[in-house]
Amino acid sequence: MIITIFDCLGTFAFALSGGLLGVRKRFDLFGVLFLSFVVSVSGGLVRDVLIQAMPPVAITDMRYIVISMVAGLITFFWSSLVALHQRFVLMLDACGLALFAVVGTQKAMEYGINPLMAAILGMFSGIGGGMVRDVLAGEIPFVLRADLYALAALAGGAIVAVGSVLSLAPSYTMLAGAGICIFLRVMAIYYKWRAPLPRRAEDREI
Amino acid sequence: MIITIFDCLGTFAFALSGGLLGVRKRFDLFGVLFLSFVVSVSGGLVRDVLIQAMPPVAITDMRYIVISMVAGLITFFWSSLVALHQRFVLMLDACGLALFAVVGTQKAMEYGINPLMAAILGMFSGIGGGMVRDVLAGEIPFVLRADLYALAALAGGAIVAVGSVLSLAPSYTMLAGAGICIFLRVMAIYYKWRAPLPRRAEDREI
Amino acid sequence: MIITIFDCLGTFAFALSGGLLGVRKRFDLFGVLFLSFVVSVSGGLVRDVLIQAMPPVAITDMRYIVISMVAGLITFFWSSLVALHQRFVLMLDACGLALFAVVGTQKAMEYGINPLMAAILGMFSGIGGGMVRDVLAGEIPFVLRADLYALAALAGGAIVAVGSVLSLAPSYTMLAGAGICIFLRVMAIYYKWRAPLPRRAEDREI
Repeated sequence: MIITIFDCLGTFAFALSGGLLGVRKRFDLFGVLFLSFVVSVSGGLVRDVLIQAMPPVAITDMRYIVISMVAGLITFFWSSLVALHQRFVLMLDACGLALFAVVGTQKAMEYGINPLMAAILGMFSGIGGGMVRDVLAGEIPFVLRADLYALAALAGGAIVAVGSVLSLAPSYTMLAGAGICIFLRVMAIYYKWRAPLPRRAEDREI
Repeated sequence: MIITIFDCLGTFAFALSGGLLGVRKRFDLFGVLFLSFVVSVSGGLVRDVLIQAMPPVAITDMRYIVISMVAGLITFFWSSLVALHQRFVLMLDACGLALFAVVGTQKAMEYGINPLMAAILGMFSGIGGGMVRDVLAGEIPFVLRADLYALAALAGGAIVAVGSVLSLAPSYTMLAGAGICIFLRVMAIYYKWRAPLPRRAEDREI
Repeated sequence: MIITIFDCLGTFAFALSGGLLGVRKRFDLFGVLFLSFVVSVSGGLVRDVLIQAMPPVAITDMRYIVISMVAGLITFFWSSLVALHQRFVLMLDACGLALFAVVGTQKAMEYGINPLMAAILGMFSGIGGGMVRDVLAGEIPFVLRADLYALAALAGGAIVAVGSVLSLAPSYTMLAGAGICIFLRVMAIYYKWRAPLPRRAEDREI
């Protein structure tokens, strides 16, 4: 139940982020809706194809398309309003990232993937949508560059994976994993926590 | 029979558009041929993977590779000639889009996908190649931004999907769907019909 | 045995190239590691999905993730050192390209793909990682533009495919295919051999 709510919130937040970028890049209405949908489902689609959980839940469960259409229409018609609440959208996005990462990891392990790769696939479920969004909008994926984004997703997935190796109850480890992921994102957004960047000096030499 | 002709024309047009962009971006001969091929098949490839119609027709049916190689060679050696007939190429492209959208939708429904997602997968069969083309060439996908492109494909697919819900004969609904798709594209090309764009005012605020 | 060594070297070289670009684009540590991993496996992942060799070897065999993490960490901390040995990295990369192309072609044929498409899938196994790398870094894929890259991979794959049609022993044709691929890359790197480019004059007109 709580998972379903998180899942819907996360889908909604991802779709908003896709829609906003579409509006900024002046896509037309259908481009905006398409981008909203693609951002909210593509991480999970790739995961489902790779672990052979077919057909992917994103094309059998109507929830994702309905939620992302609503989010897409909202950003298309009231984009300035959405942009005004950017920080609130970032919080929703953190919930979505956390949930996609832990649920993705858990699902991959249920399909027999080893824990290390399961955590990576979980991370990808979380960050994949954002990568596709930025590539389609002609930008370098934000999720690879900043704000602990990939790390937060990986940490969430890793906790679920380690928990499963130690035979802990999935519901607790998923809660812990989602918690750490949201915590890291909040620290990144409010206190500018960052993952290490390459050294500047070297940068000049290459 | 008519479907086969349309299919070949569409593949040819898509491959020309890929080849032209490759020439413009100064890809070498093999880059141009590769781009031609990728543009003509990638929408259908993704659809086939998602609906589990494996192996994808694009890698079992030699027709696609042969047609796209011919189109790629033509654009490589006579690109100025192809560019001169840009409007003719756009017409071929509209036929390809229409056919890929309606056939893609029909195929998805035959594989048990629900009508709404089938129409979206049909749309993606049509616009996917163009998206990949533009991303590989370092541009923001044209199909998401202009000229009723995504809408035309979606309208074509939707008619097939609705027709199937109403148990109409697929051959009629596919014809109608292709017709509306081509009509919308022609209106967009000749009379500048457009899907709604985000409002400018808001654009400045975000 | 020799294949395993080549495979590891190739994975390592591909991961280095991904890591280096990540460092240049100032991805954070996890972005760099993620890019290293994605570059080394994505060509093979797509091939395995398309030929239905599931689950893909890249997510069941720990070798790839371990090697690419090591390569990613090396580029992150000593990127100037790696950049200093760029030519050595290019040689490793040529080995990787050669091996991925011939092994990819062979594997596709073992899964019943016809020889022409098998050679193309083999080529894609080799160049796919580099394409994804450049797209994620916001650049036009280098592999489509220069230095016989796609051609070398295709030549390697084609020899394996033709050999299989003529019922030659795979081990010999794979060796020959890898040899020709490495030879073409070395010629391109040291003697500037290139595939034909589109004519400049036409370029101006389109």
